Amino acid sequence: MAPTIKLYYFPMACSLAPHLILEDSGLTYESVKLNFRDPAAKEEYTKTVNLKGQVPALSIDGEVITEIPAILTAISQLAPEKKYTGDSPKDVVRFYEWIGYLGSAVHAKAFGAVFAPYKVTDDSSAQEGVKAKGKENSRAALAFIEKNLAGIKTKFALGDHLTGVDAYLAVFVNWAKFHETWDEKAYPSYNALFGRITELDSYKRVLQHNAL
Amino acid sequence: MAPTIKLYYFPMACSLAPHLILEDSGLTYESVKLNFRDPAAKEEYTKTVNLKGQVPALSIDGEVITEIPAILTAISQLAPEKKYTGDSPKDVVRFYEWIGYLGSAVHAKAFGAVFAPYKVTDDSSAQEGVKAKGKENSRAALAFIEKNLAGIKTKFALGDHLTGVDAYLAVFVNWAKFHETWDEKAYPSYNALFGRITELDSYKRVLQHNAL
Ligand SMILES: N[C@@H](CCC(=O)N[C@@H](CS)C(=O)NCC(=O)O)C(=O)O
Ligand SMILES: N[C@@H](CCC(=O)N[C@@H](CS)C(=O)NCC(=O)O)C(=O)O
Repeated sequence: MAPTIKLYYFPMACSLAPHLILEDSGLTYESVKLNFRDPAAKEEYTKTVNLKGQVPALSIDGEVITEIPAILTAISQLAPEKKYTGDSPKDVVRFYEWIGYLGSAVHAKAFGAVFAPYKVTDDSSAQEGVKAKGKENSRAALAFIEKNLAGIKTKFALGDHLTGVDAYLAVFVNWAKFHETWDEKAYPSYNALFGRITELDSYKRVLQHNAL
Repeated sequence: MAPTIKLYYFPMACSLAPHLILEDSGLTYESVKLNFRDPAAKEEYTKTVNLKGQVPALSIDGEVITEIPAILTAISQLAPEKKYTGDSPKDVVRFYEWIGYLGSAVHAKAFGAVFAPYKVTDDSSAQEGVKAKGKENSRAALAFIEKNLAGIKTKFALGDHLTGVDAYLAVFVNWAKFHETWDEKAYPSYNALFGRITELDSYKRVLQHNAL
């Protein structure tokens, strides 16, 4: 019997990465849109689904999985023919190298400070400086990503098909556009990859779910 | 032919996690101790080994791999019988859930701010506040880890044998002791796990390499 799959997400959050991979996979799943602006809804979710109080969370037959690297791994196990974590053992290592970098330096450190400087310092007069440094760090990260993508001859980051790396990379383009740190001309390879992702029917469908 | 393996590390840094797993594996490897306090040595390493200018880096037959999740995955591929990323597909998902959380919220966000507040804000008068919040976040993270470990009946985090999760968890205990945020009584399950890790001969050998 097919497993019961539920993805908990917040529009345009990092949950977009596993959302795209799930939608692309053809697996049957339900997506549960959360309203984190309502404190009661957030508290209920934190109590009953993810103690970390964050998206994404993936429930498979009632078992909850958190953290993007784990959720992408789980989806890939459910659709092994899609090779969403890479084709060969070496590619799988590169997959976790990308995801490790994107989850720590790019997401947690750089963009985290831009979105939530109050989690970085209690001193409200220091929060503008934290946000500014977060923007600087995110620009450096986008430039580093560009440098890595520039050497790649395949259609997507790890080969000629979509993987979780592309999906996570798409999240940051949306965020950088939102914070006006995106620059098509400075990041031509990254921008071209983003173009190939946004052309996918699965991406278009996921964007509809992610309307704010 | 056995591959040529080199681990680049800095004493007591996060590189201790893959260092322990390598040492435990029985694989033949060379460890290269870096001196990040010497700017010329750091620049040379950044140019020739890891563009990110960070440890750990693992070289396998000259191919360099960065990021803890990827390095642990690669070592596990070289010693598959050791199951360093977990025994079953479900355990592998839990492995990446732990590693994802430890690499982002715990390492990059909480401890990162304690070790290097100047990477979080350029305003030097704000750095004490960033460091204090980092300590608060790291205490919350240690408590969250404790809560997760308290429910576990096995010897190590993912079962009765050592995995990369335990190795990464050991890094944070050392860091918390250094910053005086460790509290044996507040984290009894975590402290007991740490005790089981430090009893391993492989841990004792790695500590010798990591003398400052
Ligand atoms: N390390 C986590 C990060 C998750 C995360 O940062 N989620 C954000 C959205 S992008 C969130 O839920 N923020 C709301 C909050 O923390 O209150 C993962 O990989 O899933
Ligand atoms: N996301 C990286 C983090 C690596 C990291 O933070 N390394 C630290 C030591 S724990 C480092 O090399 N710091 C020196 C620096 O950044 O200058 C990983 O998983 O390997």
